[in-house]
Amino acid sequence: MATETTQVNVIAAEDLLAYWQGHRRLTRRTIEAFPEDKLFQFSVGGMRPFAVMAWEFIRMAVPIVEGVATGKWEEYRGTKPETKSELLRLWDAQTAELDEKFAKIPPHRFSEVDKAFGHWEMPGIATIQYGIDNEIHHRGQGYVYLRALGIEPPPFWERN
Amino acid sequence: MATETTQVNVIAAEDLLAYWQGHRRLTRRTIEAFPEDKLFQFSVGGMRPFAVMAWEFIRMAVPIVEGVATGKWEEYRGTKPETKSELLRLWDAQTAELDEKFAKIPPHRFSEVDKAFGHWEMPGIATIQYGIDNEIHHRGQGYVYLRALGIEPPPFWERN
Repeated sequence: MATETTQVNVIAAEDLLAYWQGHRRLTRRTIEAFPEDKLFQFSVGGMRPFAVMAWEFIRMAVPIVEGVATGKWEEYRGTKPETKSELLRLWDAQTAELDEKFAKIPPHRFSEVDKAFGHWEMPGIATIQYGIDNEIHHRGQGYVYLRALGIEPPPFWERN
Repeated sequence: MATETTQVNVIAAEDLLAYWQGHRRLTRRTIEAFPEDKLFQFSVGGMRPFAVMAWEFIRMAVPIVEGVATGKWEEYRGTKPETKSELLRLWDAQTAELDEKFAKIPPHRFSEVDKAFGHWEMPGIATIQYGIDNEIHHRGQGYVYLRALGIEPPPFWERN
């Protein structure tokens, strides 16, 4: 217990959610910056188009939060969007869903080790961080696609 | 004070440092994956070569931690590395320095708002998170460079 008394807590659950939603706003602007056809077809180095990456973010975010909250790890059920407006509509629906579901994560579940989606064994907080990191990582790749297309990406530091 | 009692703390200072160092190990492997000439010269879409991005990470990491710890925001003093081995040597020196200096951040400084480098006004923790995010973001771009070069990047989920 000695470690608990000396532990310096630096990020609270509500701050992490606000930080994530800030990143999600930037990802939304990145999606918007792509011309429709390039969003679904353009890539560099044989990688996935940005729409496929954004679809991955959608399939991870709420399922991760639900898994951490409940211990039930279920794949995202929903149809892959075929247009930019459909992708953005799903994105916005998840924004509201995340706010609602993240707030319901029982405090002890953040540190509890679980096997996310039956495979990735780590504390709930690490699974959430992985989801956010994955979004930052691939969004950075989307920035390269935009630059290669001659399009200025949204400012990285702007999260409002 | 009511908010403090209901606050759910999810990330402690030592966990954040471990998480950062995990990302830094992955970034080190990304630097290593580049052939020497490509590290310093190759890019996509008119962006910076990966060595220039890695040099930015070096100029941010310890200066951010020192600024948060002490309130003194000083630019990194050091010579820009011209070779991969010199870059990796600096990287490893920072790994040790980060461990040492991060541990000395006074607890109240994480939440205290300060003007990082005289410009970016936010709590210490947000400045640290920005530094980590910036590394993840640009490392993701380095992955595109590697793919464009036909080189398999290091696995993203591996942080040891």
